[in-house]
Amino acid sequence: MTQLTPTLELALDLISRPSVTPEDAGCQDLMIARLEKLGFDIERMPFGDVKNFYAKRGNSGPNLCFAGHTDVVPTGPENEWTVPPFKPEIIDGVLYGRGAADMKGSLASMITAVEAFVTAHPNHNGQISFLITSDEEGPFVDGTTRVVDALMARNEQVDWCIVGEPSSTHTLGDIIKNGRRGSFSGDLTVYGKQGHVAYPHLAVNPIHLAAPVLDELASTEWDNGNDFFPPTSFQVSNIHSGTGATNVVPGTLSAQFNFRFSSELTFEDLKEKVVTILNKHQLDYDIEWTYNGLPFLTKPGNLVDAMIDAVERTVNVTPQLSTSGGTSDGRFIAKMGTQVVELGPINATIHQLNECVEAESLNQLSTIYQRILENLMAN
Amino acid sequence: MTQLTPTLELALDLISRPSVTPEDAGCQDLMIARLEKLGFDIERMPFGDVKNFYAKRGNSGPNLCFAGHTDVVPTGPENEWTVPPFKPEIIDGVLYGRGAADMKGSLASMITAVEAFVTAHPNHNGQISFLITSDEEGPFVDGTTRVVDALMARNEQVDWCIVGEPSSTHTLGDIIKNGRRGSFSGDLTVYGKQGHVAYPHLAVNPIHLAAPVLDELASTEWDNGNDFFPPTSFQVSNIHSGTGATNVVPGTLSAQFNFRFSSELTFEDLKEKVVTILNKHQLDYDIEWTYNGLPFLTKPGNLVDAMIDAVERTVNVTPQLSTSGGTSDGRFIAKMGTQVVELGPINATIHQLNECVEAESLNQLSTIYQRILENLMAN
Ligand SMILES: [Zn+2]
Ligand SMILES: [Zn+2]
Repeated sequence: MTQLTPTLELALDLISRPSVTPEDAGCQDLMIARLEKLGFDIERMPFGDVKNFYAKRGNSGPNLCFAGHTDVVPTGPENEWTVPPFKPEIIDGVLYGRGAADMKGSLASMITAVEAFVTAHPNHNGQISFLITSDEEGPFVDGTTRVVDALMARNEQVDWCIVGEPSSTHTLGDIIKNGRRGSFSGDLTVYGKQGHVAYPHLAVNPIHLAAPVLDELASTEWDNGNDFFPPTSFQVSNIHSGTGATNVVPGTLSAQFNFRFSSELTFEDLKEKVVTILNKHQLDYDIEWTYNGLPFLTKPGNLVDAMIDAVERTVNVTPQLSTSGGTSDGRFIAKMGTQVVELGPINATIHQLNECVEAESLNQLSTIYQRILENLMAN
Repeated sequence: MTQLTPTLELALDLISRPSVTPEDAGCQDLMIARLEKLGFDIERMPFGDVKNFYAKRGNSGPNLCFAGHTDVVPTGPENEWTVPPFKPEIIDGVLYGRGAADMKGSLASMITAVEAFVTAHPNHNGQISFLITSDEEGPFVDGTTRVVDALMARNEQVDWCIVGEPSSTHTLGDIIKNGRRGSFSGDLTVYGKQGHVAYPHLAVNPIHLAAPVLDELASTEWDNGNDFFPPTSFQVSNIHSGTGATNVVPGTLSAQFNFRFSSELTFEDLKEKVVTILNKHQLDYDIEWTYNGLPFLTKPGNLVDAMIDAVERTVNVTPQLSTSGGTSDGRFIAKMGTQVVELGPINATIHQLNECVEAESLNQLSTIYQRILENLMAN
């Protein structure tokens, strides 16, 4: 039988609330009640259907913010779960339930870490804050980005931010994400001329026009990355052309592609390179760009040092820094000039059936967060 | 006012019957009644929903067959026609109605040509036959191909065949089709490995794999054609890949392509060349082939000579031989070892709104057909 620590009790309580994005299902009220008891000032910041809050304790000095989300992805077929996804259980030391790893376990660890730290250091240095949204798994329109806009509008300073995203791969703390690549998409339409396959000289086949262009785009080396980022990558995610008939040359082709880009290149650099390739092939085309996020990077410094020390002392693991993987809300927070770093439990089961996490790892994560606070904010 | 000749009267009567494929709407009964009067032996050969007939006059000697179809393509929006598509009218010397050019006008010309010839030559040499289907514009499964199978099963010999398809381009008789390219399609599935665009090393993008292969297929010169055929052509008609999401690398890609091929290459040659290219790129793929028809070619000889002479004497035009354009039922008839040639009115308006043909050109076409009979069958 696993002993129910305050961290695990809170994690179970949060997971029991079926907060499928953009629902919050009372999770934020629960967190707010705990933070109010500790003397945090609470600011509820709903936008549209999305609940968000910003909470802060302390009035001056460096601001260390814990950031995260209370929403979870849908469960998939509930009857394929070992435990009902919103009736979490600890079985053989493993906590099962939707959100266990992404990221209600982290939220529970943050709260209990802050409780322990504030109890020991009621007059801590600087400011401790929380930035919590229920829109990280959804369209991320009315969540963190809107809160950040509001904070920036009043010149709120956030120096350090720890996002509770499940960064760990094999063992708790093995990976700290100190950045994320940038992301944007292009929606390409190539124009040809429709016709009949029996009269190819009267038609211009956009599939034939696009093939060498897509080949060149897919085989281009955009950069070599750098010490912190893997090389920029290009992927075509969708391609469609054709009327369905086998004897018709289609008139247009559409393709969507996505870049994940390092800090070596900007969005403008990459757009220009793509356009140069399209024009070199003399395509007749339209293109629409969708900008998903800047790359951000937190270079080693006082926040990263404090985290590495806390992880090493707690679980005897030396974290590796990584910027791989998808986008996260960290990109929005980094806009404030904040040092943003992500540290959370093992991500092996996130967004899957039977999402789970070692129960003990949440207790350890709480200790790690507490030690980061001690390293940076203890008086 | 255009004078109503027997050919035009019969054409109007045939067009008035709304025989949208695979319907025949009584057209074949009308033709059969005329042929019975001339002493033809009639063989109705329905297959499935499709009406067909074979009719023959004479018992020995070379067999000259007139081939064609009573079905027509749909009308499109009837209110956009100048005349209702099944209420044909001659306006300023032009006959309007669905099927006027493709190919009820030709059928009327064939019947009146044979009537005139048989009246003048009741004891003509050889055999005169008709092979008529109502499934040329449809799936061509239960039409000419089935009739040909039945004729071949009993060793019926057909030496010469004139198909009434509208072969003329600018003026009646300017083009005789003495063959058609072969056609086949390939349905290609390229296998990759689905994944997230942020983790490209864990995915294999089938769009990236397919692009250089399609480029190579599209830019390959398969042959240079020959005296009778244009070069073999390759067209991709459809391509689809992608989940719709911009952040997912799809797992598979599907593409359909079509070959129109000359008599320089066989279906097997081309299949092998395609497979060689696919394998050279080390694709993981499946491919399904659909064989639409052999190329056929009728080299200049007694049939073509008789036709050229008949056209020159009737309309003072020297026909060019051509094998361009789509497939026709001629490919099925050619399987019997028959010399197959297509000659009919101007095809500018076929399958369109306000399909039409110069009324006088049908009278001339009847004369041309009659003179071919005289050149080949008169005693
Ligand atoms: Zn998350
Ligand atoms: Zn036709």
